[in-house]
Formats: sequence, structure tokens, C-alpha cells
Amino acid sequence: MSDTVLEQSNSLQTRRTTVRRLPSRGAYDRETIYAILDEAYICHVGFVVPHESGVQPFVIPTIHARLGDTLYFHGSAASRMLRSLRDGVDACVTVTLLDGLVLARSAFHHSMNYRSVVVLGKGREVIDRDEKLRALDAIVEHVILGRSALVRPPSESEIRQTLVIALPLAEASAKVRSGPPIDDEPDYALDVWAGVIPISLVRGEPIQDLHR
Amino acid sequence: MSDTVLEQSNSLQTRRTTVRRLPSRGAYDRETIYAILDEAYICHVGFVVPHESGVQPFVIPTIHARLGDTLYFHGSAASRMLRSLRDGVDACVTVTLLDGLVLARSAFHHSMNYRSVVVLGKGREVIDRDEKLRALDAIVEHVILGRSALVRPPSESEIRQTLVIALPLAEASAKVRSGPPIDDEPDYALDVWAGVIPISLVRGEPIQDLHR
Repeated sequence: MSDTVLEQSNSLQTRRTTVRRLPSRGAYDRETIYAILDEAYICHVGFVVPHESGVQPFVIPTIHARLGDTLYFHGSAASRMLRSLRDGVDACVTVTLLDGLVLARSAFHHSMNYRSVVVLGKGREVIDRDEKLRALDAIVEHVILGRSALVRPPSESEIRQTLVIALPLAEASAKVRSGPPIDDEPDYALDVWAGVIPISLVRGEPIQDLHR
Repeated sequence: MSDTVLEQSNSLQTRRTTVRRLPSRGAYDRETIYAILDEAYICHVGFVVPHESGVQPFVIPTIHARLGDTLYFHGSAASRMLRSLRDGVDACVTVTLLDGLVLARSAFHHSMNYRSVVVLGKGREVIDRDEKLRALDAIVEHVILGRSALVRPPSESEIRQTLVIALPLAEASAKVRSGPPIDDEPDYALDVWAGVIPISLVRGEPIQDLHR
């Protein structure tokens, strides 16, 4: 560990993002966290809305894209989720990739293999035109690489009516489970099939839009 | 609409769960909502933790199972998420199934096909032993149907150390997008491939645990 500064800047661990349950599954380096963010098609954005008797959390799925150390979201300025992020509320963005069903010999030790990331922070509206265009491109590229160069780019009116939010990747954690079930010692003697059924998100045959 | 009472009891629409963005994509009937909940392997649970300067939302992925009009979660009593639900905080449970990448002729109209559900409510700890056992069984069955009868059932100690939370399905909404891209009229003349790339979660070949 000769370069402590580099070590620190690469870690997104804070008190709030420290994995408490099963801490051995936690990771805080940007490489691990960014790979998970980049692979997931969507994230779930958590934010809070005040109401009569306290606060109500909402969790909304949305497309994201990462550029460097920033996560971007976009949508209509009518979206309550985006307006909340623009107003700088505390947010939690979670991404989960499922890798397998873990079938143990006991009901208790059934589990799933997964890779998840939790990001905490406050959003800001992207006003700068260049940054906004780069973010919009990145979101299309996140859905399918190479696509943004093939399609009609956003018009001035579309740029204006799209709200883009940036969330700095400064505080985050990854949590990963992989490998076979871990059973209690006596249960290994049971005559029960045990193992992992891999699961993955697979693309099917493209369906062309034949409109006109 | 001859049976207004039945109509009402089947709808989980409330002011808080009314879909605001693109309301035509919203649905509130139990059939639509339950089918999405049952198909998803995991959900994302949103809850709020007080901190010095306000409240911090957290969004945590977890396995769920539905029995009738109740959603169940389980895990260690050390889990902050489960302890928060036990304490009756306002929660938001969101499930998202991705069905396709929607490639439009313009960057602006790119989208995804999805089916999502948002459930609002407060949890309660399941104390009743029979209900707890039924919930634990249902969670194993949710992962893979027929499995709970094949494995060693939970021991008294495992039952004690597992916290089970019930969330009534009383307030919820579904949101669904399906079908081809919707482009602006002039863009249909562009020479750009457009359509849908279906995506789905697929099970691979089981990997047996060869421990011993």
C-alpha cells in the first residue's frame, strides 16, 4: 500500500455505505462498482417525498448511464423522481444483477448469486449544454453501444424538454455473492440435489418495427 | 360495472399510487399486479433512516414471496432493512421486469419495454408460528417451485433467528410498456433500423455442488 492517496480516492466507502450484513461480501473500489453499474440496464432510484405524517420513500426504476465518476438520469421535467433529484434531496440508487439461484440442502441456506451496488448522494440538474448532450448520448449508448451515431440526434426542443440529472459517484458500495450453496456440515450427507442454477438476462431476436 | 364493491376491492389504486407520468401505462387491478410480483425473483425495498440533517432513503434488493394479499420478506434479525420494516416505517417495494430494448429512429424516443409494480405500505413482524412457516416455505417456492418439500425444513433455531416481515397488498400500482417504438411522424421516413430487441431472464444449465 505505497500510495495511500490513490488507495483512498479509489474507495467509495463511507460510514453510510459500509456493508453491515455479511461484510465479507462488500467491496468499495471503483472498478468493481463501475462494472456493475455499466452492466445493468436499469437502476432503482430511492427518494423521499414529504407527506402529512412524515416522509414516504418511493423507489422508481429508470435507465442510467455512467460517464467517468458521474451517473446520469434523464426524462421528462414532469417526472416527480427527476424533480426531487433536481431539488437536491438525499437519494439512493441501487443496481442489482442476478446471477443464479442457490439451491442448498436446507431451506434456510437457499440464496441467490448477485452483484449489487448502492450509491448515496444528492443530484444536480445538468444545465451545461455540452454536458447535457454527452449525457443523453451516453444513455442511448448504455442501452445499445454504437446506437447514438445511427439515429436522429435530439432537437433543440427535445433537449429543452428533457431533464438530465447528474449524481456524483463519491459514496457507494458493491455487494457480491457467488459460488455454491454453503450448507451446515451435517446436511451435506442428505440425499438432496444442491447447486446453482445460473440466470442471466439474454437478448432475443430483434423484432423490426414495420410501421410504413 | 354492476358490482361496484367488487370493482373497488380489486383495485389497489390510491392517490399515492396513481401513476402520474404516462398514466395510460398504469394499472391497478390485483391480477396485473400479482402476476408481476410473482414473476420477479427479487424486489427493491425502499425505506428511510433518520440522520443528522434529515432522512436518508435506502434501497435494498431482497427476495420476496406473495401469499394471497400479503407480500413476505425474510432474513437475519440483524438486517437494518428488516428491522426498519418491523418498526413500521413507511416502505416502498418496487419490482421491475425488463422485456425489451426499444430502438427508435430518434435518440429521444428510445425506451425500454418493462412491467413494474410499486407497493406502498407499512410492514409488520410475523410472530404467529404457522404464518411464519408458510411464509418461509413460500419464499423457497418463489425461488423454485416444488423445492420446499425436497429440502431439510427450518429447525427451531433457524425459525427463531429468521425475521419475517409481512406487507399488506393494499396500495399499489403497475406500469407497463410494450410494443414497438413510437416515433415522430417525419422520422418514419429515415433510413434507420427501428424495433424491439426482446430481453428476458433465462435459466442456464444447473451446476451441481460437488462438496464431498
